[in-house]
Amino acid sequence: MTFRAPSQAELTAFLQAEFPQSRCTLEALDADGSVVLAHAVGAAELRPGNTVSGPVMMTLADVALYVAILARIGIVPLAVTTQLSINFLRKPRADRRLLARCRLMKLGRALAVGEVWIFSEGDEEPVAHATGTYSIPRERA
Amino acid sequence: MTFRAPSQAELTAFLQAEFPQSRCTLEALDADGSVVLAHAVGAAELRPGNTVSGPVMMTLADVALYVAILARIGIVPLAVTTQLSINFLRKPRADRRLLARCRLMKLGRALAVGEVWIFSEGDEEPVAHATGTYSIPRERA
Amino acid sequence: MTFRAPSQAELTAFLQAEFPQSRCTLEALDADGSVVLAHAVGAAELRPGNTVSGPVMMTLADVALYVAILARIGIVPLAVTTQLSINFLRKPRADRRLLARCRLMKLGRALAVGEVWIFSEGDEEPVAHATGTYSIPRERA
Amino acid sequence: MTFRAPSQAELTAFLQAEFPQSRCTLEALDADGSVVLAHAVGAAELRPGNTVSGPVMMTLADVALYVAILARIGIVPLAVTTQLSINFLRKPRADRRLLARCRLMKLGRALAVGEVWIFSEGDEEPVAHATGTYSIPRERA
Repeated sequence: MTFRAPSQAELTAFLQAEFPQSRCTLEALDADGSVVLAHAVGAAELRPGNTVSGPVMMTLADVALYVAILARIGIVPLAVTTQLSINFLRKPRADRRLLARCRLMKLGRALAVGEVWIFSEGDEEPVAHATGTYSIPRERA
Repeated sequence: MTFRAPSQAELTAFLQAEFPQSRCTLEALDADGSVVLAHAVGAAELRPGNTVSGPVMMTLADVALYVAILARIGIVPLAVTTQLSINFLRKPRADRRLLARCRLMKLGRALAVGEVWIFSEGDEEPVAHATGTYSIPRERA
Repeated sequence: MTFRAPSQAELTAFLQAEFPQSRCTLEALDADGSVVLAHAVGAAELRPGNTVSGPVMMTLADVALYVAILARIGIVPLAVTTQLSINFLRKPRADRRLLARCRLMKLGRALAVGEVWIFSEGDEEPVAHATGTYSIPRERA
Repeated sequence: MTFRAPSQAELTAFLQAEFPQSRCTLEALDADGSVVLAHAVGAAELRPGNTVSGPVMMTLADVALYVAILARIGIVPLAVTTQLSINFLRKPRADRRLLARCRLMKLGRALAVGEVWIFSEGDEEPVAHATGTYSIPRERA
C-alpha cells in the first residue's frame, strides 16, 4: 500500500481529538511541505505589558513542528520533542491571532528538525523564531 | 529606602493576580537565590503517550525564570523573555506534579540569564533542563 | 555626515587585520542585507569520520553574524556574541569549502539576532543552521 | 570481557592523535563522571576588546562534551554533535587559561546530552554555559 500523506482535515481531526483544549488551529498545508497554524489571542494568552505570553508562542512553535512532521510521515502520535530553542523578537499584538509557519530542515529516520516563524496576523515582521527537534519512534503510520 | 526583596507570599500574590489561570505555584525561595516552582499535572497537561506535554514544561521553565528574577530585583512585571532553550531528557510521570528549580547564572542591568532543572516530583533524574534570557526594563521596583 | 555602510572591501580588510589566522572569507554582501561567507576546508578542519568538525561550523556561524551586523551598523569591533544555538543537520563534505548565508531577523539598539544557513559549497541541502544574538555597545561607527 | 572506561591518559592520547592542532587539554576525570578540560589562551584566541573569542569557548564546550561522552562509553570516535547552545555570560580574562567542566545530564543509546560550565582559570564566576547533544553511533567500543 502506497503511503498517503494525511490531509488537512485528518490532521485537524487528530489535533482536536488529542488536544481538545488547544487554541491552535491548522490553517494550511503548503505545497512545499510547510504548515501554517494559528493561535487565538485573548485574555488567556496575555501577560503584563498587554502582550502575548512567551509560553503561548512556545506552545504554538511546538505544535507547528509536530504537525509539520506528521504531515510528512503520517499520524505518528508518539513523536516527541527533544529540544526546542526560541528567540522572541518583537512584542506581539494583543488584538490579533498569532500565525506560525513551520518548515522542516531535516527529516531523518529517528530525528526531525524544523524552524518556525511566528507573526501577529497581518504583520510582516516576525514576533518570534524557533527551531526544534523531534524524536520519531520507529514504527511510522 | 533600602531595597527589600519580595517575600514568597508577595510573589505568590503577584502570580495569582497576573496569571490567574496558571497551574504553576511558587513552592520555595532558597537561601542561595534559587526558586522552586511546581506545576499541577492532570488531563490538561497530558499528550499522546500518557506523558506531560512539552509546552507545559516550557511554560514552567519560563515562569520559573521570571520568578527567580523578580525575587532578586523586585516585582518588575515588564521583564520579558528574549530567548529560551530546553532539552527534554526523560518522559515525565503522568501522575505527579512537575517541580522546577531555577538559578540565575547572570543578573546584569539589562539582561538576566538562568537555568531551570525540571523533575517529576519525587524522582531524582531530571525530565528537562532549560536555559533562558530575560530582558529587564530600565526602571526596577 | 550621512551614515555609509561599509563596503565588502572594508569589511574584508577589517577581518584580515583583526583575525589574521581566520580561514573565513567574505564572499558577498547581498542587496537584501544578507552576507555570504566561506570557510576553507582542509586537514585542520577535519575530524574523525572524515567530516568537518562542529567547531569550524560554529566559528563560521559566529563570524557570519558578526559581519552581517557590522555590514548594517558600521565597523563596531566590540559587538560581542551573547548567545548562539546550532543544529548540525548533515555531514559536510571533506573536499569542499563551507558557505554560510546570514540574515538578521532583528536589529535593535542593544541586541541583534540573526540566522545562518551553512552548506558544503555546491550542495543544496544545508549541513547546519544556527541562530545567534549579539550585544551592540552603545557607540556605533 | 567487562567494559573498562578509558583512562585520562588514553583519552589524552586519543585527543592528541585525532586533533593534533587543538589547544584543549584534559585536566581531570572526576569521580562523579564530570570531566575538566583547559584551553590555552594566547594571541590566537583573542578578539577585539582583548577578550577570548566566542568560537574558542564553543570549541572548548564541544570538545568537553565529546570527552565526557567517550569517558563513559569508551573511545567511539564517530560520536558527533547534533545540537549545541551557548550563553556567553561575562568577558573572559585575556591572561588566563579557560577551564571547562562538563557533566552529562542524559546518556541514552543513541543520544547524549550534557552541560558545560566555562571559567577563566582562577575565577569563580562562569564566563559561559553551554548545553549540547551528541549522536552516538550504534557500535560502541
